[in-house]
Amino acid sequence: MSTIIAQFQRTRSAAASLAMASGETRNAILRHMALLIQEKSVDILQENQKDLDQMSVDHPMLDRLKLTPERLVDLVESVISVTQLPDPAGHILSQKTLPNGLELTKITVPLGVVGVIFESRPNVTIDVAALCIRSGNAAVLRGGSDAFHTNTILVDIVHQALTQQGISTDVVYLMPTDRELVSTLLTAVKYIDVIIPRGSEALIQRVRKESLVPTIETGAGVCHAYVAESAGLKMAVEVVVNAKVSRPSVCNSLDTIVLHRSIASEFLAQVREPFTAHAVKVYADESSYAILESVGYPLLEKAAEADFGREFLDFACSIKVVDDFSEALAHIATYSSRHSEAIITSDEPEANYFLSAVDAAAVYWNASTRFTDGGQFGLGAEIGISTQKLHARGPFALEKLVTEKWIGKGQGQIR
Amino acid sequence: MSTIIAQFQRTRSAAASLAMASGETRNAILRHMALLIQEKSVDILQENQKDLDQMSVDHPMLDRLKLTPERLVDLVESVISVTQLPDPAGHILSQKTLPNGLELTKITVPLGVVGVIFESRPNVTIDVAALCIRSGNAAVLRGGSDAFHTNTILVDIVHQALTQQGISTDVVYLMPTDRELVSTLLTAVKYIDVIIPRGSEALIQRVRKESLVPTIETGAGVCHAYVAESAGLKMAVEVVVNAKVSRPSVCNSLDTIVLHRSIASEFLAQVREPFTAHAVKVYADESSYAILESVGYPLLEKAAEADFGREFLDFACSIKVVDDFSEALAHIATYSSRHSEAIITSDEPEANYFLSAVDAAAVYWNASTRFTDGGQFGLGAEIGISTQKLHARGPFALEKLVTEKWIGKGQGQIR
Repeated sequence: MSTIIAQFQRTRSAAASLAMASGETRNAILRHMALLIQEKSVDILQENQKDLDQMSVDHPMLDRLKLTPERLVDLVESVISVTQLPDPAGHILSQKTLPNGLELTKITVPLGVVGVIFESRPNVTIDVAALCIRSGNAAVLRGGSDAFHTNTILVDIVHQALTQQGISTDVVYLMPTDRELVSTLLTAVKYIDVIIPRGSEALIQRVRKESLVPTIETGAGVCHAYVAESAGLKMAVEVVVNAKVSRPSVCNSLDTIVLHRSIASEFLAQVREPFTAHAVKVYADESSYAILESVGYPLLEKAAEADFGREFLDFACSIKVVDDFSEALAHIATYSSRHSEAIITSDEPEANYFLSAVDAAAVYWNASTRFTDGGQFGLGAEIGISTQKLHARGPFALEKLVTEKWIGKGQGQIR
Repeated sequence: MSTIIAQFQRTRSAAASLAMASGETRNAILRHMALLIQEKSVDILQENQKDLDQMSVDHPMLDRLKLTPERLVDLVESVISVTQLPDPAGHILSQKTLPNGLELTKITVPLGVVGVIFESRPNVTIDVAALCIRSGNAAVLRGGSDAFHTNTILVDIVHQALTQQGISTDVVYLMPTDRELVSTLLTAVKYIDVIIPRGSEALIQRVRKESLVPTIETGAGVCHAYVAESAGLKMAVEVVVNAKVSRPSVCNSLDTIVLHRSIASEFLAQVREPFTAHAVKVYADESSYAILESVGYPLLEKAAEADFGREFLDFACSIKVVDDFSEALAHIATYSSRHSEAIITSDEPEANYFLSAVDAAAVYWNASTRFTDGGQFGLGAEIGISTQKLHARGPFALEKLVTEKWIGKGQGQIR
């Protein structure tokens, strides 16, 4: 048996001790983690510097990898905030006595062993460890090789906090970063209960293709905002601009504006200035191209078919003009990645139809798609935004790190 | 685009109309299905006979494939019983107003398009169609080629019932049985939201390996009963015999008896007669072999390592004698498939520890593992027993044919 599999087995065995530990013990581990991060901040920043030194100064991931004293403070706050969330395990979901007298209870229990594969950001190491420990789950972490030194010292801290509460350090295992070991993780069905990939589209595709372990897909967000005939245009412009420019690199940012033909000219005239100010590149369909060209919009290109259903992750978007509501719905149904979709309208029946008919994790009426986020929804830190439909949809946070268990208490019942 | 993919696309489009139909309309479809099954019973039996004629008379699947007037009555009753279950969609799971005034509601909604791959039993066709229609889901069915004529007439009946209520027949699509089209289904991530394999271990393994669509694994049940030191032996024998012999071909039947050494001789002496009467073949570890040999048990074999963790699906089981409770827990943790596990004991703290520590979909104290079943649990017909931890664990029934949707209603909120 490989040493990795042997370690998975130890992690699986150790999981039960954490699952059966009290909520108070688990929270004490988190508080000790927070304390140690503060106490060892100089060491952490030194280890982080070793990782940074190995990255070229213009590497796009440099900023994501970098820890600073301020970011460590955020990390400590994030760990403490997890202690304040309710324990998701131990809830009674249903309880009944069957006609034969068997007392049947369905409760929430920890998932078991959660595997998380992630890329450069070292805060994920602490966030995932905190969420898993809080909910009674063991964790197998596979971080990026770029962050090796940083992740190592952070997991050392987690281990010290576990030891202080008498819980085995096997409960949180940081895997070596060898690429081929990812396959070992993805096929370890006996030891790993769920795998959550957190990172690039390529990583998510690999996990989807290769994993034999059930996974939570945290995927792309191709998000639309439909500006309807009756939309208040001031609000429409505000929401659309916010959804596009407030943080274009994240999955809940806007990708395509769908405009009712009757308001297209006026809307585009009003959006011209804020979009120009943020240098938003527009991939426009024929109708919107003509309008934007006539008002002299500087960053204009004709949309190709591939610009619809495209996740831009940048100061760029596509625009589609439609003749009616049903064409808007059809466009969204075709190109949506079922993450977050919005309608801007003053017509309540139209809004309600949209909220009901559009198939997405989150649907909004007169609000920005940017709200799809565990913190915004009041769920605390999230492991990712689920874009599939099983188990969790939308922010995958502490409350979803559980499964169910049926408990039957009898007096010798047989069937 | 292949014709199959084009049909998947039509099914996905049609799904929304069913999801937005009223619960009353969906139930009317089911009632009409039940009526048509009764009216067309002669035709159904004729089509079924065509399938039976193509199977050799000693084929083990013949009985599963065969429909009879009595089985059609059961099928009608099963459809009617689904109309009496509560609609799983449209429930409010949480509702709050964020500090910025955004009204956020999480509700249950249909999954969308459910793919089910199954083998000979034609009743699955009607059960799955009824469960999906009731819950507002479209269904893609891939039945066995053995049941082609039977499934075709049954889906015709479903289509007539859909048409009568003005719902597109695309909502329930019976795929051709070409083997390679299974791959088309397993990779159609754009059109299929979840796939549920229902059948042999080989089918489940293929789905696990090949599917890019999220799946619900309905897997093997390697079930244990631990007879503890303080167990009432009369009850222990009754429960163990029931769990083993009442229906050995199903996944919740008993596979391994774990015996505390102090009661092993007496328990085995008492189980000898009922096991002999049912011709239960025993694969015994060293200790239990010696005991059973001394009492002259006729169907005895020495257990190989592979007989632990083995799903027998027959009048056969393995026996393991342990020195204490922790050895019993370790044995179960190693060999369980996390389906159903039982303890027979009169020691309540021991029972509670077992119920908490054993990682399985269903855990029982002084009751047979055979209770793990949607009907027994009061959930109605089930699509299968989930042995994985995401979304559903244990019986996968109507209540789990939903996902969540976050709905945000605002007045122009931005972030």
